[in-house]
Amino acid sequence: MTNAMLQTGLFGNLFHDADIAQEFSAAAMLGRMVAFEIAWTQALAATGAVGGPDADQALASLAGFDATRFAAASDRDGLPVPALVAHLRAGLPPAAARAIHTGATSQDVIDTAMVLAGLAVLDCMAARLDAVLAGLCALQSRFGAAPLMARTRMQAALPATVSLRLGAWQRALQAQRDRLPALRAGLGQVQVGGAIGAREVPDAVVQQVAATLGLRAGSVWHTDRSAMVDLGHWFALVSGTLGKVGQDIALMAQQGIEDIALDGGGGSSAMPHKQNPVLAETLVALARHVAGLQGTLAQAMIHEQERSGAAWALEWLTLPAMAEATGAALRHAQGLVGSVRRMGAPG
Amino acid sequence: MTNAMLQTGLFGNLFHDADIAQEFSAAAMLGRMVAFEIAWTQALAATGAVGGPDADQALASLAGFDATRFAAASDRDGLPVPALVAHLRAGLPPAAARAIHTGATSQDVIDTAMVLAGLAVLDCMAARLDAVLAGLCALQSRFGAAPLMARTRMQAALPATVSLRLGAWQRALQAQRDRLPALRAGLGQVQVGGAIGAREVPDAVVQQVAATLGLRAGSVWHTDRSAMVDLGHWFALVSGTLGKVGQDIALMAQQGIEDIALDGGGGSSAMPHKQNPVLAETLVALARHVAGLQGTLAQAMIHEQERSGAAWALEWLTLPAMAEATGAALRHAQGLVGSVRRMGAPG
Amino acid sequence: MTNAMLQTGLFGNLFHDADIAQEFSAAAMLGRMVAFEIAWTQALAATGAVGGPDADQALASLAGFDATRFAAASDRDGLPVPALVAHLRAGLPPAAARAIHTGATSQDVIDTAMVLAGLAVLDCMAARLDAVLAGLCALQSRFGAAPLMARTRMQAALPATVSLRLGAWQRALQAQRDRLPALRAGLGQVQVGGAIGAREVPDAVVQQVAATLGLRAGSVWHTDRSAMVDLGHWFALVSGTLGKVGQDIALMAQQGIEDIALDGGGGSSAMPHKQNPVLAETLVALARHVAGLQGTLAQAMIHEQERSGAAWALEWLTLPAMAEATGAALRHAQGLVGSVRRMGAPG
Amino acid sequence: MTNAMLQTGLFGNLFHDADIAQEFSAAAMLGRMVAFEIAWTQALAATGAVGGPDADQALASLAGFDATRFAAASDRDGLPVPALVAHLRAGLPPAAARAIHTGATSQDVIDTAMVLAGLAVLDCMAARLDAVLAGLCALQSRFGAAPLMARTRMQAALPATVSLRLGAWQRALQAQRDRLPALRAGLGQVQVGGAIGAREVPDAVVQQVAATLGLRAGSVWHTDRSAMVDLGHWFALVSGTLGKVGQDIALMAQQGIEDIALDGGGGSSAMPHKQNPVLAETLVALARHVAGLQGTLAQAMIHEQERSGAAWALEWLTLPAMAEATGAALRHAQGLVGSVRRMGAPG
Repeated sequence: MTNAMLQTGLFGNLFHDADIAQEFSAAAMLGRMVAFEIAWTQALAATGAVGGPDADQALASLAGFDATRFAAASDRDGLPVPALVAHLRAGLPPAAARAIHTGATSQDVIDTAMVLAGLAVLDCMAARLDAVLAGLCALQSRFGAAPLMARTRMQAALPATVSLRLGAWQRALQAQRDRLPALRAGLGQVQVGGAIGAREVPDAVVQQVAATLGLRAGSVWHTDRSAMVDLGHWFALVSGTLGKVGQDIALMAQQGIEDIALDGGGGSSAMPHKQNPVLAETLVALARHVAGLQGTLAQAMIHEQERSGAAWALEWLTLPAMAEATGAALRHAQGLVGSVRRMGAPG
Repeated sequence: MTNAMLQTGLFGNLFHDADIAQEFSAAAMLGRMVAFEIAWTQALAATGAVGGPDADQALASLAGFDATRFAAASDRDGLPVPALVAHLRAGLPPAAARAIHTGATSQDVIDTAMVLAGLAVLDCMAARLDAVLAGLCALQSRFGAAPLMARTRMQAALPATVSLRLGAWQRALQAQRDRLPALRAGLGQVQVGGAIGAREVPDAVVQQVAATLGLRAGSVWHTDRSAMVDLGHWFALVSGTLGKVGQDIALMAQQGIEDIALDGGGGSSAMPHKQNPVLAETLVALARHVAGLQGTLAQAMIHEQERSGAAWALEWLTLPAMAEATGAALRHAQGLVGSVRRMGAPG
Repeated sequence: MTNAMLQTGLFGNLFHDADIAQEFSAAAMLGRMVAFEIAWTQALAATGAVGGPDADQALASLAGFDATRFAAASDRDGLPVPALVAHLRAGLPPAAARAIHTGATSQDVIDTAMVLAGLAVLDCMAARLDAVLAGLCALQSRFGAAPLMARTRMQAALPATVSLRLGAWQRALQAQRDRLPALRAGLGQVQVGGAIGAREVPDAVVQQVAATLGLRAGSVWHTDRSAMVDLGHWFALVSGTLGKVGQDIALMAQQGIEDIALDGGGGSSAMPHKQNPVLAETLVALARHVAGLQGTLAQAMIHEQERSGAAWALEWLTLPAMAEATGAALRHAQGLVGSVRRMGAPG
Repeated sequence: MTNAMLQTGLFGNLFHDADIAQEFSAAAMLGRMVAFEIAWTQALAATGAVGGPDADQALASLAGFDATRFAAASDRDGLPVPALVAHLRAGLPPAAARAIHTGATSQDVIDTAMVLAGLAVLDCMAARLDAVLAGLCALQSRFGAAPLMARTRMQAALPATVSLRLGAWQRALQAQRDRLPALRAGLGQVQVGGAIGAREVPDAVVQQVAATLGLRAGSVWHTDRSAMVDLGHWFALVSGTLGKVGQDIALMAQQGIEDIALDGGGGSSAMPHKQNPVLAETLVALARHVAGLQGTLAQAMIHEQERSGAAWALEWLTLPAMAEATGAALRHAQGLVGSVRRMGAPG
């Protein structure tokens, strides 16, 4: 759902991520939908399903695509594709109009656009993960040998060094980083099912559309939503790993423990002497939020009949928010790691 | 969390509600925060805690409040209040500056603003509930006597009339409407705790701030978040009740059942003959989303020590989105009820 | 769902509550179902719907009820009522058999039994709440004046005393205690809808059944599940409040903070010197679990048509577990409060 | 949490699975814990960390293990391991006692036992998945060619055949089946961290313990809970896939649609003519329950410091219940698929 309190500047960028948001913007998503339609028309032409000149006329229309707003149409249709297709076909002779979208359906367009958005988001997150990992590596060099009381079940356990805790953070985060290739491979599949998921077009069309978009062909997944739920699962793992880091840092920053010193930190309106570990707390909140959303996203698996509007919408309600939250968490983690002035027991 | 896909027009207003969003906008929230500060300075003056001229100077500054953006400060402080207070005090002589915010804390300001936002949201929803109830009443008049096969556990049970099903919808929705006075009474409490919830100001200050803002005085609730979780609970009940209506209508609209006929309905990009019950499906999705978010919001009860940043943020991440989703559900229910052309078994 | 790991002794009574479990046991639930049937037959007789001798014969059969196991029948029917009714009617002449259950339906029986179970559970919890509140009151007397550093956003804020933190615990818990009368009033309503919720029996039957069972009459609520979701909401508030107490105590018990000393505490297999605040941690885990379950229970509001098997089952899957978790949390809170040896900064 | 209503026979085996429950029983779990301890002592001996005769004495004690109940100790310690180790060491001379558990910790024992339980559960589920897949294959042979109206967004779309819908079920379920080897590989890792996760024992000990138990060695994962959350994710995917099948069948079984005929089906206490699709509805409820629990399990990622009691307990509260629910869903799916008498439009 939209959340006006977090998107109108009141809380800055704490609960917002401009780069991730950009990938889910109307402009970016419509651009990907049109990219699907272009690939589709090209594939119809290449396989002889439509004539070359008709396809050329259609492609000229697609190239000149104007990102008109589709809000009103979405209110009626539940999604922007019918109006988009009507818009793309407008003014074309019938044969050229038929070279657009014929054999595809709204879900093919939107699912494929979501896949492309997901891949772009993963690229962005991979870079941020690398930056956080580099930051942790630098902390290891600077503070790894410093003494730290290990704590289990919230109780002092045994003397150790900072490298023990940092190492656990690094391993957990690296493990999520290492999953990316397999996650991308699973996610990066074109959706081609047609009106009822029966995929009436020849395999060659699917192959070519997939190749054009840099995706894998494969079977229809109109009603098997596991690729989307997998993506949310990874978001939950990454934000959860960072939530652990945030929780640890907030605990380390307590007066009486003081196992960490941070630059910056949030000011208080009533107590000017305070420096609140705002980013650390935010990491915890984001992790809990993403985890909870995964419990809703997973319900999208109950996708009835050949295509479900209700279950499908659950993905839109959750996945982009989970992506933004995870993106923000990675950004905050980078900032937090970069703000460490000291780790380990105070001298 | 923000959700760029739903807020940039791609899906129209299906997953967005402009009226509710307006109540959580930076402008509206900052306006409420300043209203708190004005009431606070007035109360400090009325109780003699600050001198009249100092208060006047402070109030002049507060009246001329310019809604500057606080984004960067929020990124640092985790919330806009420290920067807001600094901004309000800027340029004032020390005594007048002390007439602003002294004895209050960020959480007093934001919690009170959230309460005021919640009350405004409930006003809006009350009107929408009344409209939906009026619409259902009209359906009773038009179609109540029409035959309808009652269905239990997804199986035909016994012959009945449309009034049976409509009556269940009406009773459930009316019950939520009837809760509003008690919900408002519980919610409408000012927050005055000061830096650590010890409420150092005299009771008269609390009383007057509350009276000025039209709220109840009461004890400090910095760490007792039940009023916020109650609000989310009511959102879950209302959206859940509407989700039941949406699920029923989607089932009634099935070919083979055809217990309802709707005007409008969503078009398909692949099957021009279809009319999809888009609003009915959206009601189901919104209900599941709000229910799931309640499972996260309820975790905000675990609000550690005197004030928790992490638990508090969970409220901001969920409540405004739940409010918008519930507002959208009420709007969609109104549209859906108004679009009914026929109820009951086809003639 | 059942959870074998927690119910077979491995974890003792940490995640189990015998008293609450007893209220949801097959014996207790069947007893309540038969109580409904007895009240029903009596009401049918009192209102003249069935003849006195037939009713007497039926009541004799009901009185001699043998709690046979209904497992196999539930596997087939999805609930024990059809087999229970067949069992109760077995061997009776037709007119006497008709004096049993006629005009009622499975959902009337089970919903009413759940209401009675809920009320019994609330009685048990009220007593435990009182005991916890008494324990907190005793801690106030013993340690209220001791110094304690108030902490906000995980940072030392200002010096205060133990009474500040204890007072916040007390107010929050007392507030939940104070809700019980209204909660009981809302919950304590008989379910009488009949096969499709049309309530074909005279009002006098409903009135008498309700009176016999100590419940309120009212309208049919087959598809309005808010009373059940309200119950879960209160469980989430109570367990959440206790989760806050648990989190606070775990934080206070940290070496370096040491604002609390506890008797007992869990031993470690590897570090004999440790005393883990097991009950405090368990309170946090239980609170998060109950909160999450509320997010699922709230989906039971989407109760399609005249009666839904799928949505209804969600209540059975969650509510008894939430009740047991809340009961266990109250028990643990009692133990934890009773184990406090010192509060406030160490001397 | 435990759920007395579902475990005492009232609802038969609808919300219970004996085979899965068995794997999480105290006996099975204690057996696995002792298996870990035996492997540990053997590894200590093999690597020379303890003397051969001491190890022999220890192993003799371990072999004679008596599954005494550890409930009371768990209430104190939060888990059964400290008491178990004390029990195993009881009566041994100091050197032999030291040959037991030295260098390991409770979490090593319990996490490894959970891994072994998870693998056993996956074995059981693999067999059930195969059975469901075989049943679907048989339905394809019998009914694949029968006509079926494809439905999208709850509306009739285009004529198709039963094979279209069955094929989507098969593909989705087969995809989950195909994930099992990778899931097992990820899960099947021994936990060896020692008191604070610093793994003080030589690699050879880890290697040998892992080999003895048929697991992979690897790094310490005390605080990286992704393997557990992955397991829950797969449960959510499998139960969600079956929830889709259940939802479809409940929709197909509606009067007016009648795309399926089932043998058996649940009886009604009020309407003897009804046959309720109880198993289909149960699949939907189980899927929603497991999905919601995943939203709680994922919060276990926020596992603070070197080991967290609160976050760890969240796994115990959710995972075994998710496993049982998924096991029950597979069993019900098998029963449901086996009860199909007809699929496709009625003749």
